[in-house]
Amino acid sequence: MDLFAKLQTNLGPLGKHSKFSDGYFSFPKLEGEIAPRMKFQGKEVLTWSLNNYLGLANHPEVRQADAAAAAKWGAAYPMGARMMSGQTSLHEQLEDELAAFVGREKAYLLNFGYQGIMSVIDSILDRKDVVVYDSECHACIIDALRMHLGKRYVFPHNDIENCEKQLERATKLANETGGGILVITEGVFGMTGDQGKLKEIAALKSKFEFRLLVDDAHGFGTMGPTGAGTDEEQGVQDQVDLYFSTFAKSMASIGAFIAGNAQVIHFLRYNMRSQIFAKSLPMLLVEGALKRLELLKTQPELKENLWKIVNALRDGLHKNGFSTGQSNSPVTPVVLNGTVGEAAALSQDLRENYGIFCSVVIYPVVPKGMIILRLIPTAMHSISDVEETITAFAAIKGKLVDGVYKNSELAVSFGE
Amino acid sequence: MDLFAKLQTNLGPLGKHSKFSDGYFSFPKLEGEIAPRMKFQGKEVLTWSLNNYLGLANHPEVRQADAAAAAKWGAAYPMGARMMSGQTSLHEQLEDELAAFVGREKAYLLNFGYQGIMSVIDSILDRKDVVVYDSECHACIIDALRMHLGKRYVFPHNDIENCEKQLERATKLANETGGGILVITEGVFGMTGDQGKLKEIAALKSKFEFRLLVDDAHGFGTMGPTGAGTDEEQGVQDQVDLYFSTFAKSMASIGAFIAGNAQVIHFLRYNMRSQIFAKSLPMLLVEGALKRLELLKTQPELKENLWKIVNALRDGLHKNGFSTGQSNSPVTPVVLNGTVGEAAALSQDLRENYGIFCSVVIYPVVPKGMIILRLIPTAMHSISDVEETITAFAAIKGKLVDGVYKNSELAVSFGE
Repeated sequence: MDLFAKLQTNLGPLGKHSKFSDGYFSFPKLEGEIAPRMKFQGKEVLTWSLNNYLGLANHPEVRQADAAAAAKWGAAYPMGARMMSGQTSLHEQLEDELAAFVGREKAYLLNFGYQGIMSVIDSILDRKDVVVYDSECHACIIDALRMHLGKRYVFPHNDIENCEKQLERATKLANETGGGILVITEGVFGMTGDQGKLKEIAALKSKFEFRLLVDDAHGFGTMGPTGAGTDEEQGVQDQVDLYFSTFAKSMASIGAFIAGNAQVIHFLRYNMRSQIFAKSLPMLLVEGALKRLELLKTQPELKENLWKIVNALRDGLHKNGFSTGQSNSPVTPVVLNGTVGEAAALSQDLRENYGIFCSVVIYPVVPKGMIILRLIPTAMHSISDVEETITAFAAIKGKLVDGVYKNSELAVSFGE
Repeated sequence: MDLFAKLQTNLGPLGKHSKFSDGYFSFPKLEGEIAPRMKFQGKEVLTWSLNNYLGLANHPEVRQADAAAAAKWGAAYPMGARMMSGQTSLHEQLEDELAAFVGREKAYLLNFGYQGIMSVIDSILDRKDVVVYDSECHACIIDALRMHLGKRYVFPHNDIENCEKQLERATKLANETGGGILVITEGVFGMTGDQGKLKEIAALKSKFEFRLLVDDAHGFGTMGPTGAGTDEEQGVQDQVDLYFSTFAKSMASIGAFIAGNAQVIHFLRYNMRSQIFAKSLPMLLVEGALKRLELLKTQPELKENLWKIVNALRDGLHKNGFSTGQSNSPVTPVVLNGTVGEAAALSQDLRENYGIFCSVVIYPVVPKGMIILRLIPTAMHSISDVEETITAFAAIKGKLVDGVYKNSELAVSFGE
């Protein structure tokens, strides 16, 4: 049978809507400088979909640093994998600064977050080892675990009682195999905005022997007194053995890092396949990250403004009868009920008639019948942006409840 | 048992030498502009270890384009995954130009080559499908196959007779499961420099039903009449169903692309996990890639000069009794016999006393007792660079044969 035959009839859970969604709901073009107000199809929209939490993407000092770094280094330097010919003193300096900032002995840069964390997990596990992980861990963690030849046990999202049960099973098995246990969760879950229960998981170390890896993509820069992350927020930095964050959110770039004790970082440097066999993080991005980290540390007003917006948005939504689920981070999901077709019609209405652009999360990412409008507040938003959004949300929620979207052309096209 | 216990005693095949190698053989710093002459530990070295085949890394027009793009866009834009908020017209333009250049209907950009090809392979396979692949495929392909739940059959490197046997087995199995067959090989193998036998594999399509994916990381820009790759070189572009290349070699950047027919590319856009769930290729790199592609197409003298150097280097080596294995691409391996310790001492001698910096490939990458000095010629090298290198190689080979390195302090330290 032709390998490609199935691809023509089954475009997958996201692709099956592509006839109606392409260029609008999927692959939309947001144009102009990264800011709360951008252009979508020629019209200005108030944007709540970019993870530019601290507003660093377009911060004048960042823009200047990025331009200067590109002029100085080009985009090519250094060439080759880190271990072969891609090492520089600035890579080491950034690692030292990141390690100090997140309170670890050592850090190591990763050329991209997705493959980076995959290789972190892959390299420290062998088939005797057992993994216990949260059911809502990001795709990159799931892909890493798909390479794992040993056993893995999943616990329902943030269900600590069940996590303990899985640790019991894992401990029993690891005692048989002679392996160790790795627990994986996230600092802040990107879809729902609730924090991983790092403190509760860390407390289980008194009962079970395991190491804890936390993916803090959304928490780095936004959580904790100094912005050092969700483990700082929860006071458990010394219990999180491996701390990971991407630069794709607060740091407004690409690349990532892993931090931990010196021995494990030394091991990782020599064993992460995607880092040994692929190119080093370009110098341009290393210099840019140094500037971003400096601002993150020296301009606490960025995080303060972020939280002013987060709190205003959440309070306003709650006062208007909206649920934001379990969120206790900047990620603000607005939970509604409706079909996939209604979600599309509602989202189109928001963009076209209210000038508001946000991500819509639908089945199969959330259960059938649930719609999540996911808002990402940033330090650059204003209180009037918040007010405008809440007014618009009240209006579209009214329409949703009144069934206005149900029989719209778009909802009918989606056919669900 | 503590998960980290094993990491302290077993640093892995590369890490076990780290006490002697770190900062010198592993993680060396090559400083200065990317060129044949760079600085290593303060001294100028003639460098043969960077995949800057066409010399684009430091081409004045590229440097100008990179600087201008960073000044215009910063390093952050666009934010978010391609499907969510990371789409731009320039991404589409680059895809159109790449597709046209490699003679395919469509192309799609990948945010990083390693995770990109992993997700290409992962998304088109289900557990019913069977994979047949070359034993020397790059780590990223192996990692992709580690996620595959179905069967895979490996054939010894470039052994077409065995490939046919594996295709027989695969066909039998696929007939039972109702799945399809994917064959994976490379255009140019990065360690040995020999081309994948694309033509011979393509000819097997008359006997078996399969799709062919070629990773042409080292062939893109360097092989074929127009530089469109190894499948152009071998005249089988219409037989290679999926053509992949990274931007990390000839294009002197990061990122990658996949090209094929419109339907399969449409499917991939909606199903590649590392692309749906991670950030889009930054605009800065997209603009930079457009300029690089333009130069690659309009300045054939770059490829001509590359091949002038390749041929001079290869001829000179052969005249001096060196073997370059099966290489028929710019990648030029010089095959010697010796221990890992001798390889280290010889390499140090080359750097310190002859001012030549190249990669040394040792066990376990090649069989015990084999040393490969891997030379990457570029369009920027000169004939006198070639002559200087051959003279130095003749000298160190003499010393190796005479046993000079055998009892050196460094060789003894390595203990093999």
